[in-house]
Amino acid sequence: MASALTQRTHRFAAIFLNIKQNKIFETIVVAVILFSALMIGAKTYNIPSQLLTVIVWLDYGITIFFLIEISIRFFAETNKLNFFKSGWNIFDTIIVVISLIPIEDSELALVGRLVRIFRVLRMVSVIPELRTLLNSLLRALPQLGYVALLMFIIVYIYAAVGTTFFASVNETLWGDIAVSMLTLFRVMTFEDWTDVMYETMEFYPFSWAFYISFIFLNAFAFLNMLIGIVVNVMEKENAEQWQQEHAGEPTIQDLSRQLDELKQLIESKR
Amino acid sequence: MASALTQRTHRFAAIFLNIKQNKIFETIVVAVILFSALMIGAKTYNIPSQLLTVIVWLDYGITIFFLIEISIRFFAETNKLNFFKSGWNIFDTIIVVISLIPIEDSELALVGRLVRIFRVLRMVSVIPELRTLLNSLLRALPQLGYVALLMFIIVYIYAAVGTTFFASVNETLWGDIAVSMLTLFRVMTFEDWTDVMYETMEFYPFSWAFYISFIFLNAFAFLNMLIGIVVNVMEKENAEQWQQEHAGEPTIQDLSRQLDELKQLIESKR
Amino acid sequence: MASALTQRTHRFAAIFLNIKQNKIFETIVVAVILFSALMIGAKTYNIPSQLLTVIVWLDYGITIFFLIEISIRFFAETNKLNFFKSGWNIFDTIIVVISLIPIEDSELALVGRLVRIFRVLRMVSVIPELRTLLNSLLRALPQLGYVALLMFIIVYIYAAVGTTFFASVNETLWGDIAVSMLTLFRVMTFEDWTDVMYETMEFYPFSWAFYISFIFLNAFAFLNMLIGIVVNVMEKENAEQWQQEHAGEPTIQDLSRQLDELKQLIESKR
Amino acid sequence: MASALTQRTHRFAAIFLNIKQNKIFETIVVAVILFSALMIGAKTYNIPSQLLTVIVWLDYGITIFFLIEISIRFFAETNKLNFFKSGWNIFDTIIVVISLIPIEDSELALVGRLVRIFRVLRMVSVIPELRTLLNSLLRALPQLGYVALLMFIIVYIYAAVGTTFFASVNETLWGDIAVSMLTLFRVMTFEDWTDVMYETMEFYPFSWAFYISFIFLNAFAFLNMLIGIVVNVMEKENAEQWQQEHAGEPTIQDLSRQLDELKQLIESKR
Repeated sequence: MASALTQRTHRFAAIFLNIKQNKIFETIVVAVILFSALMIGAKTYNIPSQLLTVIVWLDYGITIFFLIEISIRFFAETNKLNFFKSGWNIFDTIIVVISLIPIEDSELALVGRLVRIFRVLRMVSVIPELRTLLNSLLRALPQLGYVALLMFIIVYIYAAVGTTFFASVNETLWGDIAVSMLTLFRVMTFEDWTDVMYETMEFYPFSWAFYISFIFLNAFAFLNMLIGIVVNVMEKENAEQWQQEHAGEPTIQDLSRQLDELKQLIESKR
Repeated sequence: MASALTQRTHRFAAIFLNIKQNKIFETIVVAVILFSALMIGAKTYNIPSQLLTVIVWLDYGITIFFLIEISIRFFAETNKLNFFKSGWNIFDTIIVVISLIPIEDSELALVGRLVRIFRVLRMVSVIPELRTLLNSLLRALPQLGYVALLMFIIVYIYAAVGTTFFASVNETLWGDIAVSMLTLFRVMTFEDWTDVMYETMEFYPFSWAFYISFIFLNAFAFLNMLIGIVVNVMEKENAEQWQQEHAGEPTIQDLSRQLDELKQLIESKR
Repeated sequence: MASALTQRTHRFAAIFLNIKQNKIFETIVVAVILFSALMIGAKTYNIPSQLLTVIVWLDYGITIFFLIEISIRFFAETNKLNFFKSGWNIFDTIIVVISLIPIEDSELALVGRLVRIFRVLRMVSVIPELRTLLNSLLRALPQLGYVALLMFIIVYIYAAVGTTFFASVNETLWGDIAVSMLTLFRVMTFEDWTDVMYETMEFYPFSWAFYISFIFLNAFAFLNMLIGIVVNVMEKENAEQWQQEHAGEPTIQDLSRQLDELKQLIESKR
Repeated sequence: MASALTQRTHRFAAIFLNIKQNKIFETIVVAVILFSALMIGAKTYNIPSQLLTVIVWLDYGITIFFLIEISIRFFAETNKLNFFKSGWNIFDTIIVVISLIPIEDSELALVGRLVRIFRVLRMVSVIPELRTLLNSLLRALPQLGYVALLMFIIVYIYAAVGTTFFASVNETLWGDIAVSMLTLFRVMTFEDWTDVMYETMEFYPFSWAFYISFIFLNAFAFLNMLIGIVVNVMEKENAEQWQQEHAGEPTIQDLSRQLDELKQLIESKR
């Protein structure tokens, strides 16, 4: 009897898999996500209350559609546990489940609204090219880790020094270490950094050295990071390309072996 | 009789082809385009009305010259349909035809003026090096597509979140999703982004996280795009270079085959 | 007797080496540095005086801990002179020794406070990955030397010219060569550079050429530097990679030699 | 007799060549240029009149020294015409000759002062590493030519369109084509570009498209240029490196030839 159930489950899963892999279904999903994104945009404008009612109903429709879509994808999986092994599936499920909270709920209204915005991110989980792109971005992340740590240390030290000296000059910019770090991040982006500098230079005429050394250190670290990544990426690319190009081709080592065989052959003929 | 006509057409086309490929003719065309560009610049200054009359007459002259030039290029083509297969020819023809609208026409005056400005773009269609450059630019475009889409999604989500929270803080910067996206593009270029941030930080003290995460996400995506393109371009370059360098040269595979032949030769001698 | 002393010293050093290389000890050192960094940050906030007393005591504790840690690393070295051959050891020792100055000392209070901030840098000396990263940064430094010199010459000349012409326009921005160089550095970072330009353009309408040529020269020099470094780094990477990949493999030269041997073998058989 | 003269000239030239190539002489020249640069900087400060007199005398000394130095380099050349074949020699001679104009000359005072500033550039002509660097910079210049032309065309067209629409909005920023191009260059550097945009958006609400398309076009062209140069530089580097590494080494072609010889040898033995 259990076997009959399993069989039925499999047949069941096959039907859902068919739907899931249907090109038209995929296009409809992307279209609904796009429509949901446009609706989020539309709601930021002043719209007449009648249209607002329509939008609320459409939102129910989208939520139900997403619920159905995620169910199809869930039931298309023969082993239900595999479904939750993919980070994208978990992300989609959470987004859809939280979407079920009614927007009218006054306490959770904000959460409901934010979740509706993050539904746009489902675009990434649905379009394979974007998923690949984001995955490659995430794979590059650990490489940046230590450089980011080094830059954080630099900023932290400069922020501590900056607070020590400049807190009395401008409490808003250099009041405590958190505010100083924000100010230094601003200096890093060159955003009105001279205003910050000229202010402290009135009290500490040599404080330009503080800013310029900071800019150079960061630019230098950033440059190095950039180069590091480029080199890293290219090494991998080159290695892969090399293997692809030369897969199956005889190598110099093979030639050398062939020559050795030839030599033995000639010698054996003596 | 039809054959005689064809022959005459061919002879006709040959004459125009001669003119078209003439180095002096090419130089004159570039000179006229340059002159037309200078005239567009000159018209933006306050010039005496007499000179303005001269300019109007010169403009007629340039329009007629361009008409003749495009005709020569059209008649130089034996198969007239091929002429419209090149995007540059279509562009040139449209520009020249719209130029025929008299500037005095009060209703279409603006169109006439804009078309005269776009005549400068004919420089690109006439100088082969620029045409090659622009073509290579356009070829790189699709590679950027998905990264651009990803960045657009990031900006869209941040704009929706920004509007939700900050619309009450500053209607001009965060009023609706379009305005918010413009504001975020501004933040991306680091243009007075701290002014935008400090304003919202008064109401939401932790809104710095919104801006800084946005800047990092975009910088990171942009970095990746840049590297992607560099790697892509270099792969192609390397592949082409490799093929050019080694065209006609024996490969390791050829050597292996030669060795096999040798082996068979020796064995056959037994 | 001397030998017995040496032996005892060695046994002594071995014990300390054991502690130094202990994974738990390393983790504790990193944790204490982190804690010391957090304390520096905490002190920038307004904290109740009781907590301040606690912090002063904790600071004594950290100082003593660092003193013990550096001693362990010193005694772990059998040849005490080797200890001072590493720049990082010297740096750590100086930081720790200056930390011994009591913070209450009114005259040296600032030095004491700054040294406590620089203790965060010990993170770099303790975490091997960061040390490697910084070393590679320093190794890239000499490559940048001559480009930096060239850029400095450009800035110096423009500053001298700027002071000659613009000192009368704005004493604060162009008063003397040092101030002018700071202003030009600001122009290099695009920070409100048009404000500087518009001001001088009122007196010297063509001074835009001064700024734009400066921006282009610097951008160009910087670009070149960047490319120079990338190429340099990649050359090294490629060379190393090549050698690693092909270490032990037969080269084309080896093949050629094998062929020659074969030829002699065949000829000798005649 | 002519031969005796030639011989004497040669001996004369040899003496000067000796001086010119003397390491101490080179160091002195660099030191004098450095000193002259410092003096230029010093003069931008308010200095007592006595020191000013000293500086005027020192300036005479430097001028005479440079005159002697250039003479030595001139006389060290056996063929006097070769001297003027080097652009650096011509540059040095012009700088030194114009330096002979007395600073007190009220009419040419400015020229005299500027020439004294450009004497710092002699640093480049004297230090060989800087000369090499600058030469490599100049060699990269033609590659940038067409991209620069394309960017100029883009800026010109946008400036013409901008003047047409926005001249009535802000005469100072968009009054004529030259001013518009300067404004667009400012937009390219992101310098307060939103101020420019918000102003025109009051009259043309869709003018944001003008700015954003301009920024993207330029960023894109610039990106391409950068990649173009990198690829170009690396191709050359790779080609040179390849040839250096493999100079004298047997190629696959050589191996193939060796194999053919072997085959003929074996066949001839039948």
